[in-house]
Amino acid sequence: MASTLLNQAEFQRRWQAMAAVAEKSDYDGLLFFSTECEPASVRYLSDYWPSFETAGVLVVPGHEPALIIGPESLNYATSRSRISKIIQIMDFRESSQPEYPGTTLPTWDDVLRKYGVRRLGIAGYPLVPYVIMKNIAAALGSFDAIGNADALVRPVFIKKSEAELACLRKAAKVSECGYKAVLEAVKPGMTEAELCGIATAAMLANGAEATGYPVWCCSGPNSAHAISRPTLRKIGVGEIVHFSVGAKVEGYSGSIGRPVVLGHCPDSIRRFLQVGLDAANLTVELMQAGSVAGSVAQKVHDYIRAQGYGHAILYGPAHGCGQMECEYPFMETSSKYILEDGMVFMQDMFLTENQMGFRWEDAVIVRPGGGELLSSYGREITVI
Amino acid sequence: MASTLLNQAEFQRRWQAMAAVAEKSDYDGLLFFSTECEPASVRYLSDYWPSFETAGVLVVPGHEPALIIGPESLNYATSRSRISKIIQIMDFRESSQPEYPGTTLPTWDDVLRKYGVRRLGIAGYPLVPYVIMKNIAAALGSFDAIGNADALVRPVFIKKSEAELACLRKAAKVSECGYKAVLEAVKPGMTEAELCGIATAAMLANGAEATGYPVWCCSGPNSAHAISRPTLRKIGVGEIVHFSVGAKVEGYSGSIGRPVVLGHCPDSIRRFLQVGLDAANLTVELMQAGSVAGSVAQKVHDYIRAQGYGHAILYGPAHGCGQMECEYPFMETSSKYILEDGMVFMQDMFLTENQMGFRWEDAVIVRPGGGELLSSYGREITVI
Repeated sequence: MASTLLNQAEFQRRWQAMAAVAEKSDYDGLLFFSTECEPASVRYLSDYWPSFETAGVLVVPGHEPALIIGPESLNYATSRSRISKIIQIMDFRESSQPEYPGTTLPTWDDVLRKYGVRRLGIAGYPLVPYVIMKNIAAALGSFDAIGNADALVRPVFIKKSEAELACLRKAAKVSECGYKAVLEAVKPGMTEAELCGIATAAMLANGAEATGYPVWCCSGPNSAHAISRPTLRKIGVGEIVHFSVGAKVEGYSGSIGRPVVLGHCPDSIRRFLQVGLDAANLTVELMQAGSVAGSVAQKVHDYIRAQGYGHAILYGPAHGCGQMECEYPFMETSSKYILEDGMVFMQDMFLTENQMGFRWEDAVIVRPGGGELLSSYGREITVI
Repeated sequence: MASTLLNQAEFQRRWQAMAAVAEKSDYDGLLFFSTECEPASVRYLSDYWPSFETAGVLVVPGHEPALIIGPESLNYATSRSRISKIIQIMDFRESSQPEYPGTTLPTWDDVLRKYGVRRLGIAGYPLVPYVIMKNIAAALGSFDAIGNADALVRPVFIKKSEAELACLRKAAKVSECGYKAVLEAVKPGMTEAELCGIATAAMLANGAEATGYPVWCCSGPNSAHAISRPTLRKIGVGEIVHFSVGAKVEGYSGSIGRPVVLGHCPDSIRRFLQVGLDAANLTVELMQAGSVAGSVAQKVHDYIRAQGYGHAILYGPAHGCGQMECEYPFMETSSKYILEDGMVFMQDMFLTENQMGFRWEDAVIVRPGGGELLSSYGREITVI
C-alpha cells in the first residue's frame, strides 16, 4: 500500500464519524457513491478509487463498513482498500456493459437485506445514475425509502484532520514541481498538450500518484477558458498562456493556476493580471476563521469592480477542495456559512475579457488571522 | 481548432445519421449525455468534451443540433464545438454545486418546449444521474416520456468511418510512442506512477491530446489487477510489470497492453505469458467479418483451457473501442452479434493466477480475412 500520510486509524475515525451521522439520521445506513472522475467519497472511506467502473461504500451502524465494487476490480480493490469487506455488484460494471456470462453476483436486495437497511441515505446523490437509483429503490420497495444524505455528511468531509492537511500540503508542493517543470520548458512552438505532459511527468516523478484533475494549458484565445483541456495548438510569441496544473497525493488534489506571458507584455495586460493577483491575495487575506464566506466573496468582487473589471468576473473567488480539486462548498456572494479554522479552499481567481483570460489559484487553509497559502511558487507576473 | 483528421462534413454526417435514427423512432428527439470520464457521445457529435461539468447534445429532426453545457464552459465549448448552437443549463454544473448568484439559465422545460420535444430518447442512458433524469421527466410531465435510446444509436457509433479509422490508427501509433518511452526508461527502483508519467509525456509530445484513459503500470503483486491505477510502489528486480498505456487522438482512444519482466523470467512464467500471447494472436486471427462474436470468444477461451489456464480467465477476449477505450459491445461467449468489416475492437487478453497477471492488448479492425492489428510494437515477451 502506497499511503504513508494516512494510517488505518484515520480511516477508522472516518467510519466512526459517518456511522455517527447515520445513527442520528432517519436512515438505517448510508451509501457513498463514486465514479472514475468523481472518486472522492469512496476514496475518503476506503482508499480505493474506481477506474472504468463505479463504486460505493456502505456504512451501517453496528456493522463494519463494506466497499462495493464492480465485476473486474476485485484484485485492484483488495490491494487498496482499507475496508476488508468487499462486495461486487453488477450495477457498478463498466459503461460498455459487459455481461460476464457465468458470473453470479449479489443483488441490491441481497446486500441491503443482509445489512438490515430499509431506509437508505445516499451521499454523492447528484452523481448516482438513474438506473442504479431505480434498482436500489426496487430493492427497498420505493423511491421514498432513499434520501439525499449529502447535507448530513458534508460537515465530516469539510472538517479536515491533520493527516488530511498533510496530504493537501504535499499535493500543493508536488503541484509546484509540475509548474516549475513547465516554466523551465515553455517556449514558442510547443503545444499545449506537450506542456501538460511535462507537468504531469514532473508531478508523477515527485510523489504524485496521478494528476489532481485533467490538467490544462491554454494559450492565446484559449486562455479565456475558465475550464478547459489542452489542444495541439502551438504556443506563439507574445501570448498569454494559462496553466492549471495539480497533483493528486494519497487521494488529495492540489492545483496551481498561473498566467505566463511569452515575450512582450503590454501595460494593459499587465494591469489586468495585477488586478487579478491583487484580488487573489485579498481573498487569501480575508479567509479568516469567523468571517461569513459570502462577505469575503462580496469584498473581493467589490475590489475587482472598483478597478474596472466587474465584467470579467465569472464566479466566486474560492471553492472547497480536498479529495476533489473542486468540492463543496463554493465561496460565492450568496454563501451564508461561516469560515472555520482548518477549512481548506482553492483561492481561484479567474477573470476574462476580450478573448483573453487567466487564473491565479492556490490552496489555502482558513486560519484565525487570515488564510495560510499552501503554494506560492511563481505567484507573480511572469514574462518569459 | 486542433482536429485535422475529422472535418465538418464528418460531423454533419453524424448529425444526419442520428437525426435519421430519431426520425424512425418513437421519440421527438434524442439527448446524448456525457461526463468528464465518459465523454464519448457528446464528443462524437460536437468535438467538445466536458471537464468538471457534464454535457449533452440534443438532436431533433428538422432542427440544427444543440450542444448543452454547464455554466462555466462557454468559452471552452465555443472554441471546440462543431455545433454552433450552444445552450447552458444549471443541471450540467460541477459536482461541487455552485449557485452562480445572478446567473439566469433556461430550464429543461424551456429547452424541450422550444424544440417541440414531448418524448425524449436518451443515449448514454446508464450514465444519466437520477436528479437530472427527474428534472427532465418533470419538464416532460412523466418518466414515461423518456426512453433508453442506446440500442437505437449504437449501430451508428459502431460503424466507423474512414476518418474515424484514421484517428484510431493514429491513436495506436501514438500509444506505441508511450510504450516505447517506458521500455527505454524502465528500471528497478522507479515507481509505477513515474513510468506512467513518462508514457504520458511521450504521448502528449507526439500528437496525443490526452491519455485515452487513466493509464496504469502495475508491478509485482499489482500485476494481477485487471483494472488498476499506478501507485508509488518501486519496481523490483525479477518482477512482472504490466503496462496499459493509451493515447487519445481527436477524441479516439488507443491502448497498448504489455507485460515486461525485469531480470530473470522463470520458465513457468514465460509459458503463462506465451499462452496469453498465443490466445491474443488467435483472437486477432479469428476476428473475421461474418463470424459470430460469441464463437470467437468461445474458441479463444477453449484454447486457453486446453493449455491449462482456464482458471486465469476473467472476461471475454475483446471489447469495442472508439472514443472510449472500452465501449459497447464486449466480445463474450454470450455475444450473439456478427462481426462486420470495419468494426473496431480492443483485443484484450488479461489472465491472472497466483497473485500475478498480465494483459496483451492492441486495437484491431475486423476484416474479411481476419483482424488488422493497429499496433504491434513490443508485442512479444520482453525480458529486460
